[in-house]
Amino acid sequence: MAEPAQTLDGWYSLHDFRAIDWTTWKMLSSEDRTEAIAEFHRFLDKLNSTQDAKEGSHALYSIVGQKADFMLMILRPTMEELNELENEFNKLKIAEFTVPTFSYVSVVELGNYMPSEGDPYENPYVKERLYPILPKANHVCFYPMDKRRQGNDNWYMLPMEDRRDMMRSHGMIGRQYAGKVKQIITGSVGFDDYEWGVTLFADDVLQFKKLVYEMRFDEVSARYGEFGAFYVGNLLPEEKIETFLHVN
Amino acid sequence: MAEPAQTLDGWYSLHDFRAIDWTTWKMLSSEDRTEAIAEFHRFLDKLNSTQDAKEGSHALYSIVGQKADFMLMILRPTMEELNELENEFNKLKIAEFTVPTFSYVSVVELGNYMPSEGDPYENPYVKERLYPILPKANHVCFYPMDKRRQGNDNWYMLPMEDRRDMMRSHGMIGRQYAGKVKQIITGSVGFDDYEWGVTLFADDVLQFKKLVYEMRFDEVSARYGEFGAFYVGNLLPEEKIETFLHVN
Amino acid sequence: MAEPAQTLDGWYSLHDFRAIDWTTWKMLSSEDRTEAIAEFHRFLDKLNSTQDAKEGSHALYSIVGQKADFMLMILRPTMEELNELENEFNKLKIAEFTVPTFSYVSVVELGNYMPSEGDPYENPYVKERLYPILPKANHVCFYPMDKRRQGNDNWYMLPMEDRRDMMRSHGMIGRQYAGKVKQIITGSVGFDDYEWGVTLFADDVLQFKKLVYEMRFDEVSARYGEFGAFYVGNLLPEEKIETFLHVN
Amino acid sequence: MAEPAQTLDGWYSLHDFRAIDWTTWKMLSSEDRTEAIAEFHRFLDKLNSTQDAKEGSHALYSIVGQKADFMLMILRPTMEELNELENEFNKLKIAEFTVPTFSYVSVVELGNYMPSEGDPYENPYVKERLYPILPKANHVCFYPMDKRRQGNDNWYMLPMEDRRDMMRSHGMIGRQYAGKVKQIITGSVGFDDYEWGVTLFADDVLQFKKLVYEMRFDEVSARYGEFGAFYVGNLLPEEKIETFLHVN
Amino acid sequence: MAEPAQTLDGWYSLHDFRAIDWTTWKMLSSEDRTEAIAEFHRFLDKLNSTQDAKEGSHALYSIVGQKADFMLMILRPTMEELNELENEFNKLKIAEFTVPTFSYVSVVELGNYMPSEGDPYENPYVKERLYPILPKANHVCFYPMDKRRQGNDNWYMLPMEDRRDMMRSHGMIGRQYAGKVKQIITGSVGFDDYEWGVTLFADDVLQFKKLVYEMRFDEVSARYGEFGAFYVGNLLPEEKIETFLHVN
Repeated sequence: MAEPAQTLDGWYSLHDFRAIDWTTWKMLSSEDRTEAIAEFHRFLDKLNSTQDAKEGSHALYSIVGQKADFMLMILRPTMEELNELENEFNKLKIAEFTVPTFSYVSVVELGNYMPSEGDPYENPYVKERLYPILPKANHVCFYPMDKRRQGNDNWYMLPMEDRRDMMRSHGMIGRQYAGKVKQIITGSVGFDDYEWGVTLFADDVLQFKKLVYEMRFDEVSARYGEFGAFYVGNLLPEEKIETFLHVN
Repeated sequence: MAEPAQTLDGWYSLHDFRAIDWTTWKMLSSEDRTEAIAEFHRFLDKLNSTQDAKEGSHALYSIVGQKADFMLMILRPTMEELNELENEFNKLKIAEFTVPTFSYVSVVELGNYMPSEGDPYENPYVKERLYPILPKANHVCFYPMDKRRQGNDNWYMLPMEDRRDMMRSHGMIGRQYAGKVKQIITGSVGFDDYEWGVTLFADDVLQFKKLVYEMRFDEVSARYGEFGAFYVGNLLPEEKIETFLHVN
Repeated sequence: MAEPAQTLDGWYSLHDFRAIDWTTWKMLSSEDRTEAIAEFHRFLDKLNSTQDAKEGSHALYSIVGQKADFMLMILRPTMEELNELENEFNKLKIAEFTVPTFSYVSVVELGNYMPSEGDPYENPYVKERLYPILPKANHVCFYPMDKRRQGNDNWYMLPMEDRRDMMRSHGMIGRQYAGKVKQIITGSVGFDDYEWGVTLFADDVLQFKKLVYEMRFDEVSARYGEFGAFYVGNLLPEEKIETFLHVN
Repeated sequence: MAEPAQTLDGWYSLHDFRAIDWTTWKMLSSEDRTEAIAEFHRFLDKLNSTQDAKEGSHALYSIVGQKADFMLMILRPTMEELNELENEFNKLKIAEFTVPTFSYVSVVELGNYMPSEGDPYENPYVKERLYPILPKANHVCFYPMDKRRQGNDNWYMLPMEDRRDMMRSHGMIGRQYAGKVKQIITGSVGFDDYEWGVTLFADDVLQFKKLVYEMRFDEVSARYGEFGAFYVGNLLPEEKIETFLHVN
Repeated sequence: MAEPAQTLDGWYSLHDFRAIDWTTWKMLSSEDRTEAIAEFHRFLDKLNSTQDAKEGSHALYSIVGQKADFMLMILRPTMEELNELENEFNKLKIAEFTVPTFSYVSVVELGNYMPSEGDPYENPYVKERLYPILPKANHVCFYPMDKRRQGNDNWYMLPMEDRRDMMRSHGMIGRQYAGKVKQIITGSVGFDDYEWGVTLFADDVLQFKKLVYEMRFDEVSARYGEFGAFYVGNLLPEEKIETFLHVN
């Protein structure tokens, strides 16, 4: 029997992608739009308080292209909190003018291919990665992925040692992008349609392309990677929400 | 000719996933919303009576992410009863504010890979599994699946003995999760698009990920499993429905 | 060059699946609903007259799950008649409250793998099968299917003899369900997206699962079957239509 | 390097499939419906004039099943004319009551597997096929297709000679249907999602099934054919449009 | 470890495909339509100013068939500018009468399979290709594509030398179309669902078909190309927008 990799699991994660229905949004009176935006800010204030208390984190990005207009990514200690925030957002006035286009449910995950000493959940470095405060990078990239199980290219039939070697080589590519790209891997086996979600943050959007393209030549991606849709976006700082949503 | 596995079949099952149309729900007057919720409770009361009489069972969970807002899973002795309850729900006031997003039709199934003595339908242990009262676990996970028939990975061309051995090994992983995850397998060959539905219940949602991930390395999943969409959710106790549906 | 199987072709067939838009249906006045149902009955009366004259047949079933609320299957001697009835249905009042969810266009087909003597179209047994009066069984199951053409599993590259042998073995499984399941095969090459439609009728819905599952282990399905969506339903007798459509 | 087949290219082609929104169509006053139909006739009159002048051709068929209610196929010397007619149709009153369900953009194509003498574009037989006046056959069948590029079944890696031999054998099946089925091949590489569109015309609809099924056993289809959706329909002569669209 | 090709990256690119909702567009008063068109012209004027300053480029084409009515392709130095223009367009009056049907996010890319001397970003020829002013050709063709990673046909597992040789042969086909077809390759790894977008411009639309078809026989496409949807269209010069959008 193949030996599964051990994982460490941190905060639960919801990526919530929305398109804006500009036509109905414009139908609202200017006052109602102002109030809807204010209510949205109160919601974000609450998220900020949680983040300040290091009891969760979140990120808001506008998305380029028709797949969505913005993405709200939320991290929380429990699946119940994610669900409550999702519902709270859905009940906001602003939500009436959004159309859900994609979401992803997962949990921050650290693959544990190399044996470690001591309780990893007590390791400060590990804790920082399992319960990350999301960076305010200029850009975000998100995509879900699977490890392939197809004919001779079946990741799950490989010996642990082979998988570990390939992941190590894979990690070395990632390390070359240290300081340029911050990567958060979330596991979604049993939670959503793919096995992992990959969220990348960078100040230079081109680094996403360079990183993903370089990795694609690595055996673990070339032979074993199956990728879902890719989303790319720009930081939407709270002070720009009003401009973002401004219509005449 | 390959020898099909014998199965035992229990209650028929309908998983009914719905999104809530919050915008139109808010348009309703507060009194009308109250009445719609009360009517929904009367519907659930009827389901509870049936469950108390052990003539069926059901479970209500909120679903995380955009795939649905809640799932109602119903078990009944006949396909006609399932259909009647589905239609009865569809005629409720509350249903006008829901959007069907996915459903699954199947029947509780026990694979019978090991020969058993006596009439299994008279075996109390078997009966409890064929006609299960669904647990009030904190979390639910649902996904449909097929056994692969592709090139050299064709489950249905394997000798019975090989299939039995692999299923036994598979079952042993499941058994390690006894007490943590309750699993209900429903067969859907001839009823819906996949061959089986898997419904997992757990108090710790992370156990879904651990179980499904560990099994994925088992040959029966690694080489022969084809998985549909995954849904994960939180228990929605009846006393929380009003809060769940509360809007200003 | 591979030798195609000869087929006999009977009545043309339309499977028409519809969901009901309960919300708008409820908006109609009780009188208008009554009149819409009466008009639907007049349409069905016309179908009944054709069936009594053995110039066609039809079946009405409610469908379990969200894929549809009911299916009307119609058999007629010409494609033009099918199209006219489809359009006539579409112009009914009741149709305004239905949403088309799936349809299938095909023709009743008898595979002719074994050579027969005399003009088969004059054979009473064959005629009964080519121009069948659909049974009033408690349940229906419908699914479309292809024969696979993939790598080493290419049905259409097999010698006629191999195909004949496999179909014979396949037919023997079917024969074990004689009296339990009535099967109508309709060919749809050139008419719709799959090569065949399979419509099963049974009083015991579990027989669909047993039959389809047992056949799946047969080489012709295991290696060569590609299946589309499965629909399962319950007989909707005309006298129950009013109850089925009743809303407050 | 493999040698591509040379093609001859004629009129550009648009297949435009539409469903009718019967509910809103019925909402129109009888006078407005009459005027909308009259306007549609004026549009068709214009197409007829072009066809009479042999500067293009078109065909109008009702489609069986839910995929569409009718198809308008238009042939013209330039892509611009197709686009203008498409837009002109879209601006008609009748178009407000149609829902686009599928379209296909291509160009009439003659494969040129056998060398020919002289300028083929001056050959009267070739010209008749490149600039065809569409027949008023009782039935139409349309489907798009690709040549497969998969593992060992890769059409585009085959030597020209093998492709030519297979196409010749394929053509011989087609020739057996001469007088029964008229076939128009349109190429769509670079124009639409598949590589070819196949439009068949026949007075006996069953000939579509016989032809496509027989060809499926031919190696070129069995190993190398990938087929899209199939549409089948009945001739909708202009004098029947009023009846076709008549509602109470 | 396989060696990734080095790329040069220029302007960011958004292809934005829209269908027009003619029914609601007609509901607008003639004055409002005139004003909406004028506002759209002011938006295009702004794009023209940017293009005149060589700080970006854009192209407007009507699209043939139901996939879209027009495409606006925009090139800009940053992802932020693309996003702002997308949002600005979305807030226009005209946008209320369009339905997003497809979009593509990418960056102008030059594959760098042959080593070059000096800083390529300072090379005038390279700069012209990385920051191209889009031509006013009569026709456009767009499709996204991947390099295949499937069984024995895995582009990303090939040695760099093999990939370079195949790309060179591929480029030679393209060069035969010099003067007939202008090709802009945009990379989308990490930005959108495919790895590249291909935008072709030509005065003779048939050259798209000839080029793409000829390339399909080239090993790099035959074995390694995976293609998405194809869009084809006609130049929509600004002075024709009023006619294009004219309704009675």
